[in-house]
Amino acid sequence: MSAASPFVSDVPAAAALDAWRQARAATGCPARVEAMRVPAAAAVGRVTAEPVWARRSSPAFDSAGMDGIAVRAADTVGAAETTPVLLAAGEFEVVDTGDPLPAGYDAVVMREQVHRTADGAAELRAAVPPYQHVRSIGEDISATELLLPEGHRLRPVDVAACAAAGATELTVRRPPRVVIVPTGDEIRPIGTEPAAGEILDTNSLMLAAQAREAGCDPRVTDIVADDPDAITAALRAAAVDADLVILIAGSSAGRDDYTARVVAGAGTLAVHGVAVRPGHPVVLGTVAGPAGTPATPVLGAPGYPVSAALTFDIFAAPLLADLEGAAPRERPSTTARLARKLPSAIGMDDWVRVRLGRVQGEVVATPLPRGAGVLTSLVRADGLLVVPAGVEGHHAGEQVRVQLLRGLAEIGHTIVAIGSHDLVLDLAASALHAQDPLVTLASSNVGSLGGLVALRDGLCHVAGSHLLDPATGEYTLPYIDRLLGADADVAVVRLVHRDQGLIVAPGNPLGLCGVDDLTRPGLRYVNRQRGAGTRALLDHELARRGTDPATVSGYSREEHTHLAVAAAVAAGRADTGMGILAAARAFGLDFVPVAQEPYDLVLRASALDDELLAPLWALLDRPDFRAEVEALGGYSCAETGRRVR
Amino acid sequence: MSAASPFVSDVPAAAALDAWRQARAATGCPARVEAMRVPAAAAVGRVTAEPVWARRSSPAFDSAGMDGIAVRAADTVGAAETTPVLLAAGEFEVVDTGDPLPAGYDAVVMREQVHRTADGAAELRAAVPPYQHVRSIGEDISATELLLPEGHRLRPVDVAACAAAGATELTVRRPPRVVIVPTGDEIRPIGTEPAAGEILDTNSLMLAAQAREAGCDPRVTDIVADDPDAITAALRAAAVDADLVILIAGSSAGRDDYTARVVAGAGTLAVHGVAVRPGHPVVLGTVAGPAGTPATPVLGAPGYPVSAALTFDIFAAPLLADLEGAAPRERPSTTARLARKLPSAIGMDDWVRVRLGRVQGEVVATPLPRGAGVLTSLVRADGLLVVPAGVEGHHAGEQVRVQLLRGLAEIGHTIVAIGSHDLVLDLAASALHAQDPLVTLASSNVGSLGGLVALRDGLCHVAGSHLLDPATGEYTLPYIDRLLGADADVAVVRLVHRDQGLIVAPGNPLGLCGVDDLTRPGLRYVNRQRGAGTRALLDHELARRGTDPATVSGYSREEHTHLAVAAAVAAGRADTGMGILAAARAFGLDFVPVAQEPYDLVLRASALDDELLAPLWALLDRPDFRAEVEALGGYSCAETGRRVR
Repeated sequence: MSAASPFVSDVPAAAALDAWRQARAATGCPARVEAMRVPAAAAVGRVTAEPVWARRSSPAFDSAGMDGIAVRAADTVGAAETTPVLLAAGEFEVVDTGDPLPAGYDAVVMREQVHRTADGAAELRAAVPPYQHVRSIGEDISATELLLPEGHRLRPVDVAACAAAGATELTVRRPPRVVIVPTGDEIRPIGTEPAAGEILDTNSLMLAAQAREAGCDPRVTDIVADDPDAITAALRAAAVDADLVILIAGSSAGRDDYTARVVAGAGTLAVHGVAVRPGHPVVLGTVAGPAGTPATPVLGAPGYPVSAALTFDIFAAPLLADLEGAAPRERPSTTARLARKLPSAIGMDDWVRVRLGRVQGEVVATPLPRGAGVLTSLVRADGLLVVPAGVEGHHAGEQVRVQLLRGLAEIGHTIVAIGSHDLVLDLAASALHAQDPLVTLASSNVGSLGGLVALRDGLCHVAGSHLLDPATGEYTLPYIDRLLGADADVAVVRLVHRDQGLIVAPGNPLGLCGVDDLTRPGLRYVNRQRGAGTRALLDHELARRGTDPATVSGYSREEHTHLAVAAAVAAGRADTGMGILAAARAFGLDFVPVAQEPYDLVLRASALDDELLAPLWALLDRPDFRAEVEALGGYSCAETGRRVR
Repeated sequence: MSAASPFVSDVPAAAALDAWRQARAATGCPARVEAMRVPAAAAVGRVTAEPVWARRSSPAFDSAGMDGIAVRAADTVGAAETTPVLLAAGEFEVVDTGDPLPAGYDAVVMREQVHRTADGAAELRAAVPPYQHVRSIGEDISATELLLPEGHRLRPVDVAACAAAGATELTVRRPPRVVIVPTGDEIRPIGTEPAAGEILDTNSLMLAAQAREAGCDPRVTDIVADDPDAITAALRAAAVDADLVILIAGSSAGRDDYTARVVAGAGTLAVHGVAVRPGHPVVLGTVAGPAGTPATPVLGAPGYPVSAALTFDIFAAPLLADLEGAAPRERPSTTARLARKLPSAIGMDDWVRVRLGRVQGEVVATPLPRGAGVLTSLVRADGLLVVPAGVEGHHAGEQVRVQLLRGLAEIGHTIVAIGSHDLVLDLAASALHAQDPLVTLASSNVGSLGGLVALRDGLCHVAGSHLLDPATGEYTLPYIDRLLGADADVAVVRLVHRDQGLIVAPGNPLGLCGVDDLTRPGLRYVNRQRGAGTRALLDHELARRGTDPATVSGYSREEHTHLAVAAAVAAGRADTGMGILAAARAFGLDFVPVAQEPYDLVLRASALDDELLAPLWALLDRPDFRAEVEALGGYSCAETGRRVR
């Protein structure tokens, strides 16, 4: 808004990393953190700072490779089934696996192939070559061979092999130190109860954990106010003991966004704004140390949590790996079929979070909400799909490459539910996972109609639906006939009956009695999205009364779940909305019943006996689960588990 | 050997896991470790012991989604390019991203779309719908929604989302406690200098690190002698405070192998011997606690290091994940072309370690040494190939599934060298990796001839060769003509010249002068394997003299590297062998020169300009690298980097 705060630019990610690297080199930031000597046990997870050469051979002596007897191969020449050779006591020695080969012997015969006679001799029915079943000195590694190169991140087997080869102390890079500086007048530490308009400092928690996962020592400073001098002082103080400073928030160009200016003032501003979404307003630079000391890299991370998390992955992680001299950690990837059209703006790498599931033998990727503030999109994501800056998006059904956040075996055990949302699905998801952690029930909420379309298109295993057909007064079945065909191979299993009604403020201060009151002047309604069963119910009730939806104020304001509607009422942003009793109760709100409706699971009939779904059907039969559902209030399990088509 | 020690059985891995599970249930081993409450920051890496429901909505208030101005959507109706709407000061409010939406306003206009007039009014040229650029309360998550199910391993984003939703303390499973009990009279603690026949306790180091990687708290006890009473006492003591006891070694059926008997005596022996190689002599069971207390699972791990490591993965890791109620960690996998025939015994799952490289666009898997004692095979492995019990092996060139131990991007940056071994390749490998940790030079030592065959078959990028052609006295080139064809698209780059000679004990006590002395009665020679250039050199020298190889005692005793030959001489197992000066020096041995020979890198000429190899050519040009090579002794870099074909 002001001339002093220029808009952020759109530097491509690779160019931004380059510019940052150059700025670091130009300002004398160290290329690597220092090396240190540590015992092998303390070296796991660290990166070698020099090659590891074997100091001793392993094994250090010739030894028996089997349980049996040590012999002289020459003594066994001529032994055969018909001409056994007898070795008298003293001409052989009993050995177990790993025993040093006794002096004078040069081969081992497995005990299964030795016949011991009563007088203690050993009878052999086959000749053996020299060195049979002998583990030679250096079989594993010979002294002076290269065991590990410099720049290798040590795993348990590595340190064991090092110790076996005499390298019981190792020279490794110390963990890089990351100092995280949260900023913002509205930010409050975790543990406090935030007042209206205040936000908990969850980003510091997350970034510190990300840094620890990347093998670093993180430290979080106190929260700094939106004041350029205070931020400058905090940045300088943090840099003293850091290999990387991360300043959280203030990286955009709003009135209180000082990061770019502060970095420019305290050091070098290399980049302000990258062509990455979410994550656009990133600051990359360095902060100067006192005269004669090196500068320190600084990353200004956006305050939106998804932006902050991805910014760490894209910009901090490669730098930190570089400081250790190690290859950056790499996510495995897979190809998947895109469940729906995915538009993407040209000019920006678009990091889209997706849910993955194996449906009809194919991995299907369903995009999650794309807002930079929707951290649950990252929590629920099974993968990340990067739409590069030069690509305008993807068509539905296109094969795309996805970085995996969960293993493919787990993804193969995921029941994909797309459709209407209900708390009972949440309950079921947790119960199934608690019982067998390999089983996941992942539900995407796109409304009942969207679920049936997803089922038709082979994008989900089950679709939750409670769609009222105004013409017949029947639920869901008429829509299946219309969308999937009357002959479709489709089964419908009742999940639950539930109360629908108007969610209202505690005590129902406006005295709403039902749908007739929704056209009352000044009343603020909050609706569900098109295709939602709850919206169909409202439309049905309005149509029955001959009421024009346009006369309901707020009809066009859409929320995507019952809980979001209740949240809007609880926040006083709306006076009422249609939803289920459980959602009203969850927010301590009141409820005016309108109707009881069935909520069903729709699936391919051929999938009924699918092993994947067996745990779900078993759960619906469990009395303890049904009791838990009914305890939510507004639910009846009288028909739970019944196949209605 | 004794009737009291039965042979181990061959229980398939899945059946063994089942039998162990049943034994644990039957003896009252707890199904899960206890839950504990911890702050969100301490919960990363832990597993949820109950579902996490959102206690607060996030965001907790409506807020601006953009930098700009908050407006009433109704005030903007009719605004267009030709009919702008002017909002006077007081009819809008400037907001930054994240600011709470000021009371009375219901939409945000991005500042880029606002024209501020001189008198402080805002001019809009487009109408905006209600809630434009407004982040609604609960956009991320609504109170009472399921955030995470029970049985979820918490990542940084998870704990941040939990804290944002009011769950700043979480109920998680405590880390399982693993107590590791090393046994064996010959085992010495790391840090001591082992005498002849003694072995360092590297398995405890490795298993403890594996347990820590699996999210557990490991503890290692003192080393226990091969005495059944002492082992029983140690097992009982360890079980008091453990969720799993791992007894190392003694799990086979040799004379000093007491684990199976001890477990049977102190609790329940469920399995002794599994159909897995390496790892066959595994013991699975439980040890009883004092009356009224639950039993504790016990795993008897074989003492061979590869067996011990794989046994942890196959048997301990699933149990530990189960105790936490989490899905077991999963390795990504890929398909690869098998570089050579891989025989495998029917009836055993064969865990084969493989090197991977991308050659001519295809991932190629080269099996590493399969001995249970060759820990370096696991260190050098890029992947694990499991040949199931029912499969008799694979043909060369077959497509196989490989579990990945390194990322595919790293594997794509690996220079695969197959052929003769030389220390200069080790030096180059470490220098390349230190410079760019993404670049790996992986060399497999199969001799010069094997390398040329591998190059012909598209299994490697470069083949190291020093093959003398007896007919022409020329090195390597005649073999290329023969194996790959005189017109083959093959380039040869000289790596180095090096001295070959007889490696002898310090002071050359037998006074060997050259190849003529090798037929001296009683002399013990150690040879290199067929196809090795060093063996071809010996054969050439013998043929020149008309000497029958059969008159060289030890001619049939093969080692696969120069260093292994030197190790054999150093250990007094042989009197001499042919090899390079550097190998002799490495073991403090003496050296009788026989010849100087070129050591060359052979590759496809089309690969000369390959980006992958560019760092190698650059390295060969570096004076500091050449100086380091010549400092090894016995090397000349006069022609290093020269293309000789």
